[in-house]
Amino acid sequence: MSLERVLNAESVAIVGASKTETKRGYQAIRTLQDEKFEGSIYAVNPKEKSVLGLKCYKKVSDIEDTVDIVLITTRAKTIPSVLEDCGRKDVAGAVIIAGGFGETGKEGKELENEIVRMARKHNIRLIGPNTSGMMNVKQGMNLVGLHDVPKGDIALLSQSGNMALTLITEAKLRSLKGFSYYVGVGNEADIKFHEYLDFFRDDDDTKAILMYVEGMRMGRKFLQEAYTTTIRKPVILLKSGRSEVGQKSAGSHTGALAGISMVAKNAYQRAGITVIENSDELFPAAETLSSLPPVKNNQIAILADGGGHATIAADILTDLGLKIPELSEKTQEKLKEILPPAAAVRNPVDVAGGTDSDPTVFADCADIILKDPEVGGLLVVGLFGGYGIRFAKSLSLKEEDAAHRMGKMLQKRHKPIIFHSLYNSEKTHPLHLLRYYSIPVYDSLDVACKCMGVLAEYGNFTKSYHPKANFIFNWREEAKPEGDNLIRSVREKGRRVMLEHEAKTLLKMHGFPVIGDKVAESADEAVKIAESLHSDVALKIVSPEILHKSDAGGVKIRLGTEAEIRQAFDEIIANAVKYNPHAEIRGVLVSPMAKKGLEVIIGTKIDDQFGPIVMFGIGGILVEVLKDVATRVLPLSPPYARKMVDEIRASAILNGLRGRPAYDKKAIVKLLLMVSEVIESYPDIQEMDLNPVIVHETGLSVVDARIILKKEEVGKEEMRGNE
Amino acid sequence: MSLERVLNAESVAIVGASKTETKRGYQAIRTLQDEKFEGSIYAVNPKEKSVLGLKCYKKVSDIEDTVDIVLITTRAKTIPSVLEDCGRKDVAGAVIIAGGFGETGKEGKELENEIVRMARKHNIRLIGPNTSGMMNVKQGMNLVGLHDVPKGDIALLSQSGNMALTLITEAKLRSLKGFSYYVGVGNEADIKFHEYLDFFRDDDDTKAILMYVEGMRMGRKFLQEAYTTTIRKPVILLKSGRSEVGQKSAGSHTGALAGISMVAKNAYQRAGITVIENSDELFPAAETLSSLPPVKNNQIAILADGGGHATIAADILTDLGLKIPELSEKTQEKLKEILPPAAAVRNPVDVAGGTDSDPTVFADCADIILKDPEVGGLLVVGLFGGYGIRFAKSLSLKEEDAAHRMGKMLQKRHKPIIFHSLYNSEKTHPLHLLRYYSIPVYDSLDVACKCMGVLAEYGNFTKSYHPKANFIFNWREEAKPEGDNLIRSVREKGRRVMLEHEAKTLLKMHGFPVIGDKVAESADEAVKIAESLHSDVALKIVSPEILHKSDAGGVKIRLGTEAEIRQAFDEIIANAVKYNPHAEIRGVLVSPMAKKGLEVIIGTKIDDQFGPIVMFGIGGILVEVLKDVATRVLPLSPPYARKMVDEIRASAILNGLRGRPAYDKKAIVKLLLMVSEVIESYPDIQEMDLNPVIVHETGLSVVDARIILKKEEVGKEEMRGNE
Repeated sequence: MSLERVLNAESVAIVGASKTETKRGYQAIRTLQDEKFEGSIYAVNPKEKSVLGLKCYKKVSDIEDTVDIVLITTRAKTIPSVLEDCGRKDVAGAVIIAGGFGETGKEGKELENEIVRMARKHNIRLIGPNTSGMMNVKQGMNLVGLHDVPKGDIALLSQSGNMALTLITEAKLRSLKGFSYYVGVGNEADIKFHEYLDFFRDDDDTKAILMYVEGMRMGRKFLQEAYTTTIRKPVILLKSGRSEVGQKSAGSHTGALAGISMVAKNAYQRAGITVIENSDELFPAAETLSSLPPVKNNQIAILADGGGHATIAADILTDLGLKIPELSEKTQEKLKEILPPAAAVRNPVDVAGGTDSDPTVFADCADIILKDPEVGGLLVVGLFGGYGIRFAKSLSLKEEDAAHRMGKMLQKRHKPIIFHSLYNSEKTHPLHLLRYYSIPVYDSLDVACKCMGVLAEYGNFTKSYHPKANFIFNWREEAKPEGDNLIRSVREKGRRVMLEHEAKTLLKMHGFPVIGDKVAESADEAVKIAESLHSDVALKIVSPEILHKSDAGGVKIRLGTEAEIRQAFDEIIANAVKYNPHAEIRGVLVSPMAKKGLEVIIGTKIDDQFGPIVMFGIGGILVEVLKDVATRVLPLSPPYARKMVDEIRASAILNGLRGRPAYDKKAIVKLLLMVSEVIESYPDIQEMDLNPVIVHETGLSVVDARIILKKEEVGKEEMRGNE
Repeated sequence: MSLERVLNAESVAIVGASKTETKRGYQAIRTLQDEKFEGSIYAVNPKEKSVLGLKCYKKVSDIEDTVDIVLITTRAKTIPSVLEDCGRKDVAGAVIIAGGFGETGKEGKELENEIVRMARKHNIRLIGPNTSGMMNVKQGMNLVGLHDVPKGDIALLSQSGNMALTLITEAKLRSLKGFSYYVGVGNEADIKFHEYLDFFRDDDDTKAILMYVEGMRMGRKFLQEAYTTTIRKPVILLKSGRSEVGQKSAGSHTGALAGISMVAKNAYQRAGITVIENSDELFPAAETLSSLPPVKNNQIAILADGGGHATIAADILTDLGLKIPELSEKTQEKLKEILPPAAAVRNPVDVAGGTDSDPTVFADCADIILKDPEVGGLLVVGLFGGYGIRFAKSLSLKEEDAAHRMGKMLQKRHKPIIFHSLYNSEKTHPLHLLRYYSIPVYDSLDVACKCMGVLAEYGNFTKSYHPKANFIFNWREEAKPEGDNLIRSVREKGRRVMLEHEAKTLLKMHGFPVIGDKVAESADEAVKIAESLHSDVALKIVSPEILHKSDAGGVKIRLGTEAEIRQAFDEIIANAVKYNPHAEIRGVLVSPMAKKGLEVIIGTKIDDQFGPIVMFGIGGILVEVLKDVATRVLPLSPPYARKMVDEIRASAILNGLRGRPAYDKKAIVKLLLMVSEVIESYPDIQEMDLNPVIVHETGLSVVDARIILKKEEVGKEEMRGNE
């Protein structure tokens, strides 16, 4: 159901309207009146006759006219009866302030489920519970009780009231920006993050979406919506709760599972979301992305009136992966013409006193630099905006002149300009003018650089955007009937773990280069199979009851002669019986020994937040000790699979160390895509492990494979929902 | 020579005194007058009769009275003659503003050397050249021309004028702190960083030393001085120029080699210096360290009036390695008594609205929390200071009450308190009061957390301080006469590279567990040696002309039988002759094959900035591909050697993986200390490589060793200077 009537409500009822100034039921009405909400306001409180000049209704259903949205300020236990009453009218939405639901434990969770059921029954959409409220700033529909929220083009979604207050206060004190909407998402009991995203994507008044997230309930659906949103407008997100203590703190706060992992960060970034990790950068990133065009070529020029700031800026931008290209000879020549001989003109450009007596030289330099086709964006660092304070008052007029000119350059060249100014907190007029032209100014050099970084990241994303590289599974599209039969037969035997040869059989159906092995039920048969393989062999026990084969003495390798094979077969069977006398022994798997090569590992599992994910790494200490793995949310497309392979820290090994030959990276990429296909084909798979896979100079072979099925068969409904 | 008369000058001459307002020769005199410098000011300019009411002298030597310091504002080429003239008077110091020296290239470098020679001849100490000047703020001796510099207890050393201006402006706008001295260090042509440190260490008006460094000329001497300084007062340092472009930018700026490496960061931190990497944190760190006691136990409590800030703070502090311990049951009980039921009291403490109508509850909470012996410091995050704006005006008086009480708590408990406030930029009175009590307040949550981090780091440093663990070499203290003879004999042969068996001989003198090998001049001899070793052997060519033995086919391993040894011997000799027909072949080194174990690598070299350093890592891809090494400035003491071994990312391997036995870490530590001893004993050594060293469950053996000597013999003078 669309959120239109909820977020753009034209009539609001306040349940719990109050005459007491400190109560939310007073503040909300007062703010709606002060902010000149153009719709109708209804006060509801059975104990009052009127509040703030409004007639008081005993209950919502007593209101004669339409009510789009209800703000409920009363306590948790009163909510069900209030919703029941709202059900008697055609109420579209309810904002539930009260805490005491899912975030408090089992009992609260039950109450939360109850109100959601009731809301569904009556077609009421819920914001919260456990929220600081909601605002439609352009309409003056302010249900938060916070005055003077600046209007603007940023939509704000937050799971923390004080983070929202922080961001709104920051906008007010340090920018000319403001907000189109604010939603305190609360426990996400009904309306989820992705639904808000869907709404803001089409909202013309919203140019960027700013999110503070502590825990998210439907991560994959969110990624799907985000991927179609970010190509149209930037989404900026800070996910807190990385640390264990932070997670506990967030948990007590929203009742959801918290934590930013590499999986989450990769997934968000792949969806085009600007992931922020330092809260200082959150509002500035939104300001920048909603104000400026992206950096198109990852290349930045720095213009400074002193070496220190230029050096630090160069360090930070380089750390962020941006390039600081040497300016063209032509550009350098032109800069030399207007700057003193001591000036540096390669990039960073240091004016070396060349602006001291005339800051309009900044605009001259900016003009020259922005014309250079190598330059994708300009960062100006230093004292601009403070020349009137530092040197002579009259210089501030020249700074104003420069600000006007640079503002127009931005409009003409469509290349972003960002300022760092030491005098930002002095709020001087030249800096105000820059902001008027949508040029952001920061007093933190670090933040100014990071903002240029997010513009470049967003530029890179839009440039390489491909609508098909989304997060949507085409469930079962490549499934084989034999594959389904195999999985069914395992389930019918009451098992969830597929035996090694079963897993390999499934993979072979999908073209996996699985090492050619067969199950032998006797030593004679093992010898015969070995002969047909023309190779030394490994023998491994096959038993549903023995999963850790090595621990059970169930693996013997490098067997060449008939005698060795017979002896190994007998020993394995004996060991298995000893290990578990009740184990059903199916036989022994006879595999050829793999050619020498590099051991890699590929695994999949179901992430709580995002559903199926895949992991890749080089076997041994790199994975075990150094956790040197690349992870991605599935499904994969070829570019993401390639990135995974190149992303591990030890990727140089794959490229061939010191003259040694390279390993077949293309084959690994192909294997990753096959893994993606199998997971997509059989939604019943919970976990899959290919360990080891031996990679050669050309090709690779899957030596061992393990597949575990989900506890219960996956219904069609679940697949349709795409998790 | 002491800097007393330079930095505490009582009489100042301005060379280049000017009537033009924009000139430095005007601004300097004007500022000295405005800031009420108590000493004498002399104007020097042959073309003027008087400037700003002062009589003008033609030259410095014309001044009748004592001149402690001269500010030279004239151009580079004039400096030698000015200094020559100063030499006629007993001038103690000169501040040279002009650029155009070492930072511009070879010619400038020569001019720089000339003025240094001249200064030494006349006993004049130089600040700069290429500096923005110097200030003794308490005396009003301001040679920078910057007005209203706040007085205080921080000494500032900077190689960038605009970074100094940034820090001074920050102090003025956002704190109640100020400066005792400022020195623009410039090119460090004469006075070096460490000499300023030495001066500020004993200055009673200085409580902390704040440094912005782009390049440092005498790194080791600086570390030595720093180590005796930081135990008395904190030193805070930002080193810029990490990136290549940043280095170029810094190079054009000060003409010194730039770059913060892991070596530098480790070295600075070992010297007790607070290394800052984000310029936003530089002044706040100095403010905090000069105002508050250190955190003694690395454990912090967070007090918040909302979940969002608490969660983010917990994340950041955890990332910084600080602990957020659960508060004691007693503490939790007491907090519960005064907070609403929804409050979180374990830590982070979230008051859950408990302060909304009465912010003095913050002080009540702080009092309870600080009494908990587990708590080493308190971080308060959220809206404090803005309750009068956010809720009701009258609440600001309650905030003032709380501020007074918390200020007194700080004095009583000696545990640091830091505030984050959303309303910091509003400069409200309660926040002003906190600062009056030396409680810093930041609007950045990140910066507030980082400041708590530096207090903890400094606390850890002072707690584990050991005066002997300094950076001073006791050159040659453990040198053996036989070792000296061996090195001399190599030099006499015109070589710098010691052959493998020579290097091993030297190491054996110092007790290194070198694998027992001998040189054989014939196959017969090789067989005999092998028999005496009771082990399979490896043979390696011995020739001063063949350093890359494997490339020359000069290495054969795992030789067991006499026939194998004879054949290998002959092949090696033949290969060597083929590889280099002119090579002098001394024979073949016969070594026992080492028992199986873990290969590690230890190497030393001479760092440009810090002199001898040592590197440790696990052999193979960990070092080659992942650069997983620990480095330290030498000499080492046992705790640093132990830290190195535990610091590599793959250190878990040493502790024994998944039930495998652990390797002998103590033996590695001992070996590192022996390496330190050898480098200290023979200053002639340029590089030493022990690769591989095989580590066992008990003990280890050095299998191969390489030593390269310095180009020229090291004189006694050089050693005395301790680099």
